Amino acid sequence: MTELRELVKSGDVRAVARAISLAESGGPEAEELLAALYPRTGRAYLLGITGPPGGGKSTLADCLIAHYRAQGLKVGVLAVDPSSPFSGGAILGDRVRMQKHATDPGVFIRSMGSRGHLGGLALATADAAKVLDAAGYDIIIIETVGIGQSEVEVSGQADTTVLVTVPGLGDDVQALKAGVMEIADVYAVNKADRDGVERAAAEIGQLLAVRDMDEQTWMPPIVQTVARDGTGIADLAGAVERHRRHLAEGGRLEARRRERVRREVRSIITSRLDDWAESKLTGDVEAREDLEALYDKKTDPYAVAGTVLKELEIDNGG
Amino acid sequence: MTELRELVKSGDVRAVARAISLAESGGPEAEELLAALYPRTGRAYLLGITGPPGGGKSTLADCLIAHYRAQGLKVGVLAVDPSSPFSGGAILGDRVRMQKHATDPGVFIRSMGSRGHLGGLALATADAAKVLDAAGYDIIIIETVGIGQSEVEVSGQADTTVLVTVPGLGDDVQALKAGVMEIADVYAVNKADRDGVERAAAEIGQLLAVRDMDEQTWMPPIVQTVARDGTGIADLAGAVERHRRHLAEGGRLEARRRERVRREVRSIITSRLDDWAESKLTGDVEAREDLEALYDKKTDPYAVAGTVLKELEIDNGG
Repeated sequence: MTELRELVKSGDVRAVARAISLAESGGPEAEELLAALYPRTGRAYLLGITGPPGGGKSTLADCLIAHYRAQGLKVGVLAVDPSSPFSGGAILGDRVRMQKHATDPGVFIRSMGSRGHLGGLALATADAAKVLDAAGYDIIIIETVGIGQSEVEVSGQADTTVLVTVPGLGDDVQALKAGVMEIADVYAVNKADRDGVERAAAEIGQLLAVRDMDEQTWMPPIVQTVARDGTGIADLAGAVERHRRHLAEGGRLEARRRERVRREVRSIITSRLDDWAESKLTGDVEAREDLEALYDKKTDPYAVAGTVLKELEIDNGG
Repeated sequence: MTELRELVKSGDVRAVARAISLAESGGPEAEELLAALYPRTGRAYLLGITGPPGGGKSTLADCLIAHYRAQGLKVGVLAVDPSSPFSGGAILGDRVRMQKHATDPGVFIRSMGSRGHLGGLALATADAAKVLDAAGYDIIIIETVGIGQSEVEVSGQADTTVLVTVPGLGDDVQALKAGVMEIADVYAVNKADRDGVERAAAEIGQLLAVRDMDEQTWMPPIVQTVARDGTGIADLAGAVERHRRHLAEGGRLEARRRERVRREVRSIITSRLDDWAESKLTGDVEAREDLEALYDKKTDPYAVAGTVLKELEIDNGG
């Protein structure tokens, strides 16, 4: 364990991979490792990339990797797919594109799938980011497939979040854009060589225009990119850099990170309590009798939940 | 309260709307109402429609409404958008399409947004479905925008889940399809007049072919539809009906519903415990001191979570 910790700190790639796997599995050993690495975290910059499927997020991430590598920065990539049961190596088709960096020792790419419940994935991603941070990666890209509450939770772990959209994805996406408004620090309208790019950018602008603003509020820039040929990548990286500087002022970055670590503590607590509830419903004789009565409609779900919760003696006013 | 309950049971539309709003807000009054309605539930058939954005789910739902209405069945629709903070009326662009049924008293349409955390939305949707069930709706369509863990959780509440895809959505969607494989009982390849429909259907077939199968296993049919002009809707409804009959055999439907109500109890418990954790981290002096130490990296997230959990005296082996 001490050895693994030291190897991670020295940036050993295989140790990093092993440490992330350990963090994903959880348990006392993982917690011990993460506790030991924790004081070494906080130096990396966490960049979230999210958006609906088919937007070209991976290709965009690929371009950003190249951009940061050209500056001599080490880049870690966590490709998070909340709907995938797969973790570990690059097994998804669109991850393969990033594999041109596979032989570059300054780039570490890892797929994260949801083997357990959602909170588990957000937590595992946060822990994996900490391992990369402690191992000396300067930029950690957290790429999330899909767009929904789960992605919001995962991308909530970034310092700067880029929301990638494309022209002409239809009504659903317009609706989704409104929903994820608050998490986007930078908008990338990718595939900007397609018809409708100006309209898509204008629509985002309209959504942004109705927000409550003051001079302190960050106005998310809207950048047009064509990830396929690298068009607009320097602009995008510039927008991220401007947001980074914005956060650095007046302790905003620190506040954001404090909020993040607080949410993380809460996730750990919730995840434990969730395990407790599951074992209770599975193993407890009384709870199982209650469930039988519930199946027969002799009681109701809230009543059964209330009985189980009574044991904890928490006052939740429910 | 007794009055509202009786009005819901009588199928009064405004009472149904009010009851769903009440269920969404939660609290003792909502629980009392839901407890009273619970024995009346179980008659409706719950049909989930999910899939990536831009797949035409709403138009497909629209066709299915018309199909079931032609059979004289009452249809309730819950349009769930985990990324939207909006609830209540039909405010989203793609919901508007369904509004041609707005004046039909046999159709009830309701948007559900995520005002709180994810578990809250799944729970609110389950509760809304119960209200509609008790009010005498025969078919309840639960349409979920997006595709990800959150959608899996929401669609897990249906008896039959239709996964809607379209040809040519790219790699992301292929990856997502593998991830949500287990929740789909029926596949609809919509926009089947587009190029690539055969390939899309074949790809799903390939994914299905690698599963462990025996004679008892349901083989999800793949139906091609063009929701815009109604092509394939009868086939789709037929596939849903076949799945329904499959579930009716050997107590499968009951088993599925038992699992569902069990998950629901667990969600209620988790949601309460989550509230408890939040109030603890916000209000408790010791917890706040721990958080300060954490911000200064003098402790680590798992240690802080452990301290908070100690109070509950649950043995979670962590």
